[in-house]
Amino acid sequence: MEEWGIIQQLINKLGHGKVLTGDALKARYSHIWEMDRPIQAKALLLPDSTEDLSAIMKTCYQFGQPVVVHGGLTNLVGSTQSSLQDVVISMEKMNRILEVDEENRTLTVEAGAILESVQLAALEKDLMFPLNFGAKGSAQIGGAISTNAGGLKVFKYGMTRNLVMGLEVVLADGRVINSLKKLIKDNTGYDLKQLFIGAEGTLGVITKAVLKLIEKPKSRNSALLAFKDYTRVVKTLRWLESSLTGTLSAYEVLWQVTYRPMAAAVFGINLPLAPDFPYYVLMETSGADQDEDRRRLEDLLSDALHHGMIADAALSDSPAQQEQLWELREHMDHVVARCQHDQHFDISLPIGQIEEYVQGVLKELDKIAFVRECYVFGHMADGNIHLIVDKTKAGEESVNAVNEAVYTPIQSFGGSVSAEHGIGMHKKAYLHYSRSPDEISLMQSLKQMMDPLGILNPGKIL
Amino acid sequence: MEEWGIIQQLINKLGHGKVLTGDALKARYSHIWEMDRPIQAKALLLPDSTEDLSAIMKTCYQFGQPVVVHGGLTNLVGSTQSSLQDVVISMEKMNRILEVDEENRTLTVEAGAILESVQLAALEKDLMFPLNFGAKGSAQIGGAISTNAGGLKVFKYGMTRNLVMGLEVVLADGRVINSLKKLIKDNTGYDLKQLFIGAEGTLGVITKAVLKLIEKPKSRNSALLAFKDYTRVVKTLRWLESSLTGTLSAYEVLWQVTYRPMAAAVFGINLPLAPDFPYYVLMETSGADQDEDRRRLEDLLSDALHHGMIADAALSDSPAQQEQLWELREHMDHVVARCQHDQHFDISLPIGQIEEYVQGVLKELDKIAFVRECYVFGHMADGNIHLIVDKTKAGEESVNAVNEAVYTPIQSFGGSVSAEHGIGMHKKAYLHYSRSPDEISLMQSLKQMMDPLGILNPGKIL
Repeated sequence: MEEWGIIQQLINKLGHGKVLTGDALKARYSHIWEMDRPIQAKALLLPDSTEDLSAIMKTCYQFGQPVVVHGGLTNLVGSTQSSLQDVVISMEKMNRILEVDEENRTLTVEAGAILESVQLAALEKDLMFPLNFGAKGSAQIGGAISTNAGGLKVFKYGMTRNLVMGLEVVLADGRVINSLKKLIKDNTGYDLKQLFIGAEGTLGVITKAVLKLIEKPKSRNSALLAFKDYTRVVKTLRWLESSLTGTLSAYEVLWQVTYRPMAAAVFGINLPLAPDFPYYVLMETSGADQDEDRRRLEDLLSDALHHGMIADAALSDSPAQQEQLWELREHMDHVVARCQHDQHFDISLPIGQIEEYVQGVLKELDKIAFVRECYVFGHMADGNIHLIVDKTKAGEESVNAVNEAVYTPIQSFGGSVSAEHGIGMHKKAYLHYSRSPDEISLMQSLKQMMDPLGILNPGKIL
Repeated sequence: MEEWGIIQQLINKLGHGKVLTGDALKARYSHIWEMDRPIQAKALLLPDSTEDLSAIMKTCYQFGQPVVVHGGLTNLVGSTQSSLQDVVISMEKMNRILEVDEENRTLTVEAGAILESVQLAALEKDLMFPLNFGAKGSAQIGGAISTNAGGLKVFKYGMTRNLVMGLEVVLADGRVINSLKKLIKDNTGYDLKQLFIGAEGTLGVITKAVLKLIEKPKSRNSALLAFKDYTRVVKTLRWLESSLTGTLSAYEVLWQVTYRPMAAAVFGINLPLAPDFPYYVLMETSGADQDEDRRRLEDLLSDALHHGMIADAALSDSPAQQEQLWELREHMDHVVARCQHDQHFDISLPIGQIEEYVQGVLKELDKIAFVRECYVFGHMADGNIHLIVDKTKAGEESVNAVNEAVYTPIQSFGGSVSAEHGIGMHKKAYLHYSRSPDEISLMQSLKQMMDPLGILNPGKIL
């Protein structure tokens, strides 16, 4: 009866078309990587306005009804997982781009808009929304904000947090906090939007955002560099950043173990650089003049070769060649395809200590009989590396053993068990490697204050 | 008795030398701009470690004793004001620079270190801490973080919030939250440090910080531009930013009313540009090659002149000339000296609407008999302008009348009554022009959760 009570109230408030139950849920899923597993939910709601969402939360608050918000479902840590006791809110109808303001260089958008459509709307006005990652064709902007998404452009433009100027959020009790300001600076009390960015939907539901746009670069040049040791990888980053002031826009590293299969898959036998160096860096500049920027980069790389900072280099000659070079970093499916059972990591460390950490982990993984290989690569300039571990064994036990090997040393290096992907369900057990008991206790107090009934994305993070 | 109880306990825990009372307070003040007014306090404490501070807060929590933390006392909104019922904690002894890490480009520091000493420690390693403002010789880094300070480099490097990688904070009850990580990316639950940045000491006491350093630019070029209308000021910003990718580092505007007295004071009769244009922009580039960058800027400005985007330009030829140009913006005391009674404002608006707002405010101020002049200038590229209003009358009534004229239109433009200075005591009455009742109520809940006894910097912000 009570069950029916809340569904009936939701139908009364939203209308039949926005409340799906029973068979209507069968075609729905909780995760874009697991489309064959139908969604678990009491009902799926399709609000198309902030008013709808506020009405939903008021009703759910009254009934103590847990809610899970669904964006593009591309999350990698189980943040959108739900149960039959949950009401799922899909943001897909709130997908309007409300304004692109060229003078203020802002874009105001509903949370359900797809990242790629936001990027395109900016480009139409010769501006750029720099947030970019593989799942951009499915990921929604509200999800990107809720997870403080990273990606390929963080080095130059920062995480999502740095690109959000204003937010509209519905609180657990249905109140609407509207702060859709187009301001770069605003020191009027607590910066409340920071609470919701990266909170994985556990403190409120983001409904709209004002995003920061930047001038679209007019040039792009890329080069692949080879290094003899890790110290030179770090020093060259500093030197290039200093010499290319403001135009260095990417510095991604592949360890040899990753370069070899990737280069073979992308280039066949005509490798851009010989496969016998320990480290490879894919770098990019974004500037104002294609030819001048290329000449400048060429001069710098000649210098670096001459002084032995880099061991070899290949500079792209055409946009097509450039795209191909970037496949080395963007098409990690080539590596995944070689794995029997793949397990992925997204960790961050102080830049200077990455190699020491990696060597230690490789030694630990070596001791595990069912581990075949560990591919290392990542956003080196952000201190963020990814590991893909290839195993001959699946199952929870093997997952836990590899997790322990990778996460245990994180603490002593002052690192993070999740640089960009978040905690969700999958990393909860490892949160204490990155955060102290007092930090976790303060997070719990914050959660209790914002969501006293515990109805917002229950069981995630904490 | 109870009074003596807490002082005695503090002496027992800290030792006599760290607890000043009675006559020992007479030489102390609450504000660097009002050194003649002795501090109001029950006692002044001088912790020299996080342990000291934790012991202080545990004792104060037990007694329900209000505390006010003092940094460099350069705040402009009364954030460090105290009463005879308060215990004041001065951070001056916690002023050690603990580490400059060149590989990770971080600097770890105690909260009481002076901003200028942080800048110098970075420069010694050829790195730069880009936070910079007039009071750098007195302001402490803890205060800068607590107020999310802005200044002259925000356009390129962001507010203080963007420059803080990790914090150590003592909570109201004395618990220490230590998160001194050197990580660019860390999505492990709520980003707790954001709570304390800009909270003006009302949610916790910042004791240490890990700051982000950047490569020191190798070149600096400056130019003064004159404009015929505001639209061109905005368009030229976009065009320069796009053409100078990553090297444009300042774009400050002076309205004619400000340029005239400033230019006369700095240059006498040899003005760099004629005084009859409505707007002047002081711009700066920071790059890697002094001569090449200058040539590039010269070419761009020729283009801009040729196409009528700018009306006139003066490019600096030497570091000395450059310093003199920047006096136009940095030595606002020339303008203050002309005022009978000066009243200062620090507001922000969407960039495109600044001129419309300013024209409206000038009309309102014109109606006030005791207003002589209003000097307008500011960090145009951040949407942040300052007004200095010259009045023939002092006193609360005149202050309130001018406040109303300046703040009332802010709301309809979606602006902020405090871009960088904070709320403190002086702007509390105007907070509601920038924040909705629901936002203020959420701030109150946050304050209640973090500081249930209301002992941290009582009466500030809320």
